[in-house]
Amino acid sequence: MGHKVIYVAGLGLIGGSIALGIKRDHPDYTILGYNRSEKSRQIALERGIVDEVTDDFAHFAPRADVIILAVPIKQTIAFIEELAHLSLKENVLITDAGSTKLEIVKAAEASFANQAVRFVGSHPMAGSHKSGASAADVNLFENAYYILTPTALTTDDTIEELRADLSGLHARFITIDAAEHDRVTSQISHFPHVIAASLMEQAGDYAKEHEMTNHFAAGGFRDMTRIAESEAGMWTSILLTNKEAVLERIEDFKERLDTIADKIKAQDDDGIWQYFNHAKTIRQEMEIHKRGGVDSFYDIFVNVPDEEDVILTILELLRGTSLVNLRINEENRDDIHGILQISFKNAKDQARAQKVIEANTPYKVTIQ
Amino acid sequence: MGHKVIYVAGLGLIGGSIALGIKRDHPDYTILGYNRSEKSRQIALERGIVDEVTDDFAHFAPRADVIILAVPIKQTIAFIEELAHLSLKENVLITDAGSTKLEIVKAAEASFANQAVRFVGSHPMAGSHKSGASAADVNLFENAYYILTPTALTTDDTIEELRADLSGLHARFITIDAAEHDRVTSQISHFPHVIAASLMEQAGDYAKEHEMTNHFAAGGFRDMTRIAESEAGMWTSILLTNKEAVLERIEDFKERLDTIADKIKAQDDDGIWQYFNHAKTIRQEMEIHKRGGVDSFYDIFVNVPDEEDVILTILELLRGTSLVNLRINEENRDDIHGILQISFKNAKDQARAQKVIEANTPYKVTIQ
Repeated sequence: MGHKVIYVAGLGLIGGSIALGIKRDHPDYTILGYNRSEKSRQIALERGIVDEVTDDFAHFAPRADVIILAVPIKQTIAFIEELAHLSLKENVLITDAGSTKLEIVKAAEASFANQAVRFVGSHPMAGSHKSGASAADVNLFENAYYILTPTALTTDDTIEELRADLSGLHARFITIDAAEHDRVTSQISHFPHVIAASLMEQAGDYAKEHEMTNHFAAGGFRDMTRIAESEAGMWTSILLTNKEAVLERIEDFKERLDTIADKIKAQDDDGIWQYFNHAKTIRQEMEIHKRGGVDSFYDIFVNVPDEEDVILTILELLRGTSLVNLRINEENRDDIHGILQISFKNAKDQARAQKVIEANTPYKVTIQ
Repeated sequence: MGHKVIYVAGLGLIGGSIALGIKRDHPDYTILGYNRSEKSRQIALERGIVDEVTDDFAHFAPRADVIILAVPIKQTIAFIEELAHLSLKENVLITDAGSTKLEIVKAAEASFANQAVRFVGSHPMAGSHKSGASAADVNLFENAYYILTPTALTTDDTIEELRADLSGLHARFITIDAAEHDRVTSQISHFPHVIAASLMEQAGDYAKEHEMTNHFAAGGFRDMTRIAESEAGMWTSILLTNKEAVLERIEDFKERLDTIADKIKAQDDDGIWQYFNHAKTIRQEMEIHKRGGVDSFYDIFVNVPDEEDVILTILELLRGTSLVNLRINEENRDDIHGILQISFKNAKDQARAQKVIEANTPYKVTIQ
């Protein structure tokens, strides 16, 4: 298929980044944009994210070959219902970008039943510290999972066509069932947000009686509560559109807490050790940790002094290397001192880095 | 007081680093070391961490003015009981380095009752990715909290004298009640370890039925489970020596999970929003986050492309600046792309960095 008209509703970080990604591989496509705020529309136009903008969602819908709803979950469902009453192009391809999938998919199947509409759910799994059209980034989804959940309205060609349109995002497309998506994300994302918020509330209340709670919290606690600072509105919608799975995880977790509490009460030295050691083993086996996984890399650990320009010195030695990340003070302890962790994309760079640093500095390099 | 004999039992990361810290300000002190493993004793001698070593704990005890027990909690209690039967110097100052304090303090008070022994509990709050005498580092405790818990055996001069001996550690000494120490650390460290391990076990079990659990886990989940990889033996001892406080935190947390579950069941949109938003507010007010806190700094966020040598370019611009840390991809999202976060020690360097980077690169810099 040649020229297409893509309509992106919602020109925030996600919608804007999707539009930029589409343009990268399809500069000939026309991209129309909707956003409620005038400022975002202006930024999107000025940055060339879209070709035309509107503040009236219905306005551009009839012109679109593909409609991408990149708005909050509730708004997504409202727009699906609105689209069902508009006169759209035959076989228009509609998708979304919501963090939960089952309720959106159900809304689409109900609204578009017996219409010449193709619909597939989408969850692009990336985000940013920043938000809004000004933060939109053509590389936001690079190597990120972009999950597609088929529906009764997904024909044989739907996913192939959408992936071709989105090829410029350089994402990792995965097709799974909407309900399964919601179950998996309840475990690795939605319920952990509940834990982080609850731990934060608990510590806040405890600090009222035990003041040093506010001061002694170190790396472990900081890491565990980081996502408690996420945007409350988004997470409220996520919990409410994934109720069953989240509630089930909560109940399951309470049982696990009872299990460890029983072991503590029984002074079951060996049982507690097994509990901790099993958790450790499982984590080490997850993709989160495995080489080749999206979040793991080839790491070196450099024992550096707390001095100015040490990192600069090391990076100069590593010039031209595929360095993925670096940080001080993070893994697996309360507060590490002076361990610079550098992550590489492959074993060759990792080995080369160790050699170069050890040959040219007095710092000791270890590989985990 | 002039020359002293310090006896450090346990020449691992903690004991070795304490010995090095003492030597920094007191090169004239004699430091004796005990360790079970011959290899650690050799390393400690070779690195000049100690002046003499033994594998017989009782052997050096009578010579010591100060005895520092830097061994696991159970061993600490066993050594306290052993010391009570040895002929020690009059008014010997004994302390430890355990992560829980009440049981150790009680053991000391019981064992040394009516003896000419001074005892104060210690918890140096630092650690490392690495362990053993080879990892000992004179700077390990720099700016770390070093908690002192007085006992019935702590005389007026005890804490002052110990702080003077440990001045070279450059730690932040704080004196609090042992029971209060254990309560505070149950909240910000011990119970979070239980959560991390439980969440990891839960996800591991869930992955057996829902395979993508192993793959979709991203930044938030990774951060929340990082400490699940801690050493099982140490955490077993911690839970067993801080039972009451940890069990109380577990029960309290289950009630909080019930609270949020009830809100989800009731579809209480506003209630869930308040829950998340309150957690967010509390975290933003904690020392963990505040400027001037031990774990927080003056940060800038640089929107960088995923290209080689970008970080090097930026660090060259920042040469000579008091850079504290830097990382990519961390705050407050599922997966950030291309945000380089750099932390500085003061506002002046932070402002200067923003100016220099914006003047010399095309990258946008934001300050949170």
